[in-house]
Amino acid sequence: MKATGLPEASVLVCPSFHDVDPMNVVWHGNYLKYFEKAREALFRKLNYGYAEMLATGYIWPIVQVEVKYKAPLLVESEATVLARILEYENRLVIGYEVITPEGRVITQGKTVQMAMDVKTRTGQFSSPKVLFEKLGKECPW
Amino acid sequence: MKATGLPEASVLVCPSFHDVDPMNVVWHGNYLKYFEKAREALFRKLNYGYAEMLATGYIWPIVQVEVKYKAPLLVESEATVLARILEYENRLVIGYEVITPEGRVITQGKTVQMAMDVKTRTGQFSSPKVLFEKLGKECPW
Amino acid sequence: MKATGLPEASVLVCPSFHDVDPMNVVWHGNYLKYFEKAREALFRKLNYGYAEMLATGYIWPIVQVEVKYKAPLLVESEATVLARILEYENRLVIGYEVITPEGRVITQGKTVQMAMDVKTRTGQFSSPKVLFEKLGKECPW
Amino acid sequence: MKATGLPEASVLVCPSFHDVDPMNVVWHGNYLKYFEKAREALFRKLNYGYAEMLATGYIWPIVQVEVKYKAPLLVESEATVLARILEYENRLVIGYEVITPEGRVITQGKTVQMAMDVKTRTGQFSSPKVLFEKLGKECPW
Repeated sequence: MKATGLPEASVLVCPSFHDVDPMNVVWHGNYLKYFEKAREALFRKLNYGYAEMLATGYIWPIVQVEVKYKAPLLVESEATVLARILEYENRLVIGYEVITPEGRVITQGKTVQMAMDVKTRTGQFSSPKVLFEKLGKECPW
Repeated sequence: MKATGLPEASVLVCPSFHDVDPMNVVWHGNYLKYFEKAREALFRKLNYGYAEMLATGYIWPIVQVEVKYKAPLLVESEATVLARILEYENRLVIGYEVITPEGRVITQGKTVQMAMDVKTRTGQFSSPKVLFEKLGKECPW
Repeated sequence: MKATGLPEASVLVCPSFHDVDPMNVVWHGNYLKYFEKAREALFRKLNYGYAEMLATGYIWPIVQVEVKYKAPLLVESEATVLARILEYENRLVIGYEVITPEGRVITQGKTVQMAMDVKTRTGQFSSPKVLFEKLGKECPW
Repeated sequence: MKATGLPEASVLVCPSFHDVDPMNVVWHGNYLKYFEKAREALFRKLNYGYAEMLATGYIWPIVQVEVKYKAPLLVESEATVLARILEYENRLVIGYEVITPEGRVITQGKTVQMAMDVKTRTGQFSSPKVLFEKLGKECPW
């Protein structure tokens, strides 16, 4: 995943017994929890956590997810999960990498989120001003 | 668990791969999901689902849980989960049994719920009228 | 998702309280659990469940996942989850649809699985004979 | 929970969006995941993680769980989860506390585990030597 000059954040995960499946590796669906932890760290960095989202009028449901698994994660291992904003003008696209302590990228992912007006519950085809502000970018509308 | 003459309901569960841990048995915490499925069936029977709870002013947070595990559940096995009301006057106490197709009770559990006023967010030391009505019992207050 | 003439199966899901997030809709990651339930039904139909997989020498780790969310699922609603084999010669590709009782497709997904030899733990670039047998197809190798 | 002079460990948890239910608090079943994280930290301290357990011949299935919930945990809040060994001679009993940054104990729990011989898959009525060794205690048998 190439650097974009846009904000990124990372968290350290240490898979627990309850994350692991009978094949002794983290169950594939649990990576979406790790991605969420990294995305939450990213939003906190932008001072745009859940409370702030609600207070400023928009929530960001996920409308698309993609994950590619190259190698498994084991119980009680350690990995860094990196989240990086890839696009933000219309949809908010975030890329993810799960990286071993040796620096190997073993999982890659992407989420696409769409702004939704909290009051009207309607999806927005362009990102609202508040996102541009949080990112320190000029809003074109 | 002795019959109480109070409402009960049961659901059939078939553990999935994602429910199972590296020891090849359902992870102990997932039984609380099975209990919840049976409890939801019980509440539907009483016409007292989540929407009805909110509409009639009380939610029922769980304040205590107990589970005893006697034998494990395997992936793609089948089991019946029975939920039965044990007490309702002050706290709502529900008992659970996980039962194999051969009729063996392999797990037993209990949840205690307290009514909480949706508006004031305060816990109630006695169950509200609406629960007595749903159970067809006379309310002592 | 167009019919492929290849096996498919479906399951009925009824989201529980523990599946739902603070926005009152099923948390996006939980759809992978629903997909797995449908995939398991599909494998059972082929007489190729987990025990049979292990006994015949291959497991099928998921190497890729995609989901597109069009509309949310609510607690205690009901939906059909359809799983349909799309490809099988090299990777096993399964498509998924979450369908409301009114026939609306609200979520679409895809998983890609690769055969892995249980003993050597090496991935296979072509599907093993046993999969062709289970599908009633002639194996080209 | 009174100090026992026996080993204890704690972890910091920060509930994610996927941990939280429609009532905006951590779903009651997810505390068993937090307890497991603290228990894993405790076992690592004793140099008795999952790999070491298997290598030394015993696994420790959970045979009983109890949780009392006094106040809820919110998304993106922070809490310490403390795990402390309470008994070890026959069953391994661990107590848990979830503690807010202000020092308030908002959840208490207990797990009971029984040693199971990995090869014979039979439960042990007394704890095996290896546990006493890990705890630095003399084994009475």
